[in-house]
Amino acid sequence: MSDLSTKIVSAEVVDLRVPTSDQLLGSDPFHKEPDYSSAVLHLETDSGLRGVSVVFTVGAGTDWICYGIQDLCQLVVGISLEEFASDPLRLYRRLIDHHQLRWLHDGVFRMAAGGVLNAMWDLWAKSEEKPLWKLLVDLEPEFIADCIDWRNIRDALTRDEAITILRSKQDGLPQREVAMRDRGPKAYCTAGWLGLSDEEILKTIQKLQQQGFDSFKLKVGRDSQQDVSRIRFMREAIGDHCNLMVDANQYWGLNEAKDHIEKYRPFDLKWIEEPIARDDVLGYVELADTFADASFGFACGEQAASPVIFKQLLKSGAIKYCQIDAVRVAGVNDVIAIILMAAKYDVPVCPHGGGIALCNMIQHYGMWDQIAVAGHSETQLIEYIDFLQTAVQHPVSINEGSYVAPTAHGWGLEFLPEFVQRHQFPDGEVWKDRDPAKKGSAYEAPID
Amino acid sequence: MSDLSTKIVSAEVVDLRVPTSDQLLGSDPFHKEPDYSSAVLHLETDSGLRGVSVVFTVGAGTDWICYGIQDLCQLVVGISLEEFASDPLRLYRRLIDHHQLRWLHDGVFRMAAGGVLNAMWDLWAKSEEKPLWKLLVDLEPEFIADCIDWRNIRDALTRDEAITILRSKQDGLPQREVAMRDRGPKAYCTAGWLGLSDEEILKTIQKLQQQGFDSFKLKVGRDSQQDVSRIRFMREAIGDHCNLMVDANQYWGLNEAKDHIEKYRPFDLKWIEEPIARDDVLGYVELADTFADASFGFACGEQAASPVIFKQLLKSGAIKYCQIDAVRVAGVNDVIAIILMAAKYDVPVCPHGGGIALCNMIQHYGMWDQIAVAGHSETQLIEYIDFLQTAVQHPVSINEGSYVAPTAHGWGLEFLPEFVQRHQFPDGEVWKDRDPAKKGSAYEAPID
Repeated sequence: MSDLSTKIVSAEVVDLRVPTSDQLLGSDPFHKEPDYSSAVLHLETDSGLRGVSVVFTVGAGTDWICYGIQDLCQLVVGISLEEFASDPLRLYRRLIDHHQLRWLHDGVFRMAAGGVLNAMWDLWAKSEEKPLWKLLVDLEPEFIADCIDWRNIRDALTRDEAITILRSKQDGLPQREVAMRDRGPKAYCTAGWLGLSDEEILKTIQKLQQQGFDSFKLKVGRDSQQDVSRIRFMREAIGDHCNLMVDANQYWGLNEAKDHIEKYRPFDLKWIEEPIARDDVLGYVELADTFADASFGFACGEQAASPVIFKQLLKSGAIKYCQIDAVRVAGVNDVIAIILMAAKYDVPVCPHGGGIALCNMIQHYGMWDQIAVAGHSETQLIEYIDFLQTAVQHPVSINEGSYVAPTAHGWGLEFLPEFVQRHQFPDGEVWKDRDPAKKGSAYEAPID
Repeated sequence: MSDLSTKIVSAEVVDLRVPTSDQLLGSDPFHKEPDYSSAVLHLETDSGLRGVSVVFTVGAGTDWICYGIQDLCQLVVGISLEEFASDPLRLYRRLIDHHQLRWLHDGVFRMAAGGVLNAMWDLWAKSEEKPLWKLLVDLEPEFIADCIDWRNIRDALTRDEAITILRSKQDGLPQREVAMRDRGPKAYCTAGWLGLSDEEILKTIQKLQQQGFDSFKLKVGRDSQQDVSRIRFMREAIGDHCNLMVDANQYWGLNEAKDHIEKYRPFDLKWIEEPIARDDVLGYVELADTFADASFGFACGEQAASPVIFKQLLKSGAIKYCQIDAVRVAGVNDVIAIILMAAKYDVPVCPHGGGIALCNMIQHYGMWDQIAVAGHSETQLIEYIDFLQTAVQHPVSINEGSYVAPTAHGWGLEFLPEFVQRHQFPDGEVWKDRDPAKKGSAYEAPID
């Protein structure tokens, strides 16, 4: 069924932006008016199959990622799927270790490389007529291990250890796959957005509980007293049997974080998410020590820029929940390395969702982790935000608080064509007649 | 003399590339064929003064930085110098904490923001008719402290501590300034480039010793046995009284690093530079523990992507030499924060030079540090590479092993116009008729 001789013939990158700032959807103390956006990559082939990937952003700057992806696509247009699928690490290295481009580091460069790699993985899974998670589940442990760049992480996990982990989960794997096709990874939701009133939160919780959710998150950060009242309110609203988590979106410095979090001890919280800067590993180690006897552990990763940062957070025991993002690091090759490290250190993989299409992607990692790596579903929670799903051909959905296992081939990331057309920046219908001050917000009056 | 009402009227960004790969200048195991390059920013004003900055890169990808700088310049065209100079942190925050662009993180985004900020600092220093170091030396401690974003670093250094450090160095400051105008920061050189023969290295050392250098660096990494012979050879060539340092350019994983470095113990090395990944803080902590009783300390920073990484390396005592780069983080605002943290933890600031124009910039930081922050010149060494200086109007120079204190206003970064014209990528004379395979190297045949 799979035709690996397929060649990439062209690459198209779309700067897709949704003016979500109009409703302040997804805002937090740092991202005050996000316009949920994506650099969308379409790799066209001579067989008609199309590799698709999405790099999520929050508005201005999407064009930077598009620019980078377009540049990197010079390295894939012309290659065959066979060249990629026989050795995915080769393309990874060609991008990430490109002897000149590597100077550009993480951030835009690593995200753009991830966009290219993810589109190639998408194409491969489509050619195998499998969802991405199933492609991963079916790959041999040695092959998976050889997709990973071990140079900077093997002090935490060796290639052999990774293979041993994967081999040890082969027992019972078919049964877990059947079970998870029936009921996908367990999900959780944010019910306590900053802008909502108590009543609105109550309504949200009730709606979510009716859908089978028992794990809820609350945004905190700016005002300690308000936050504590909100936590108390949420705890009372959901009852003692439900999980409650809080998310500070890196708002605090280390000492502030300690002061705030100290007051959170009474509420049986499950995790504190992103209390401090994304790259402050020693800060996380100190927080973990300080609150070693608390009910909660620390969670982060959605903005961790490289597998090396994850390595340190996992190996040190600083985080108890590993929040991979699908598009911040360099695609499948980086993320599977992180999931394997998390398995070794027995840290549940609880991916970051939301934005545009992130949930559509992370559900595959959840499936692979729970079927083939962790090999269980006892401790993981996967973020779920029912947002912008009307824009895609294969929306994510929830049944009794768990993801419905994805069945579309590849990532299942196809947008509806008219949605793309309307939201192209800056010429799509949604943007072209818009007040320049509302266009991507890099274009405000100089200095506030 | 200074006219702060000057307004920025336009921004021009030049993609400047020098085909240094033809001679394999500056190559290391990762950057096999670097084409030393720069995103050069010219901020033009209505007074005729021009703010200049340079973001160094190694070839392909310079255009990514140019793209970013051009986008960010929308936030400075139209503002007055007064708006910047009255509160430089305001523009820093407007760039780095832009509520949408901040999603882009470090790497391209932070480097581009640094390019914009450094050009504004350049303009300010020029309007004051001072070299950049002198502008910094003359600023009040409180003002310096208020140029810094404290959110994520104040657990290592508070605003008050920074002011105390600066105040405590006011005594004797004028004398140090006079002394350093006479003899700038002490310099060191790499004599042991990977490609050189023993004889070539000997010649290089002799030449450098005649110029007054007593501190030499050697590239290592790939072959332990060869490296050890080279170190022995260098040590014998320079004698016991000279400093010898080695640089692995992040080539090793943590365990490999330990194996290699163990063999370096007998040679009285001063530092081991970049043994492991740029963001592996806990790896550095472990190396520092493992080699606590060795002659050498660890050095890194030239690729550390943020002040938060520096904070951890300094606060933990993991590095004994703080190698700031002039263009990797967000300009003067970030670098002065790092220099102040280094002062608190008593770690000498030994900036990374070379590339295009890095030495021209770091000499200013060396001057400021040694006059006004560390307040002495006993432990610092500043990298010096005599390279591409014929391209600039104010070349760096060395006298008796020390930098000659810079006197040009601002950074003194002006390139000769014909050099810029010839090296513009891809249309300058040097590039336009070049074999596409030799053009920036993103454009090689797909997959090696």
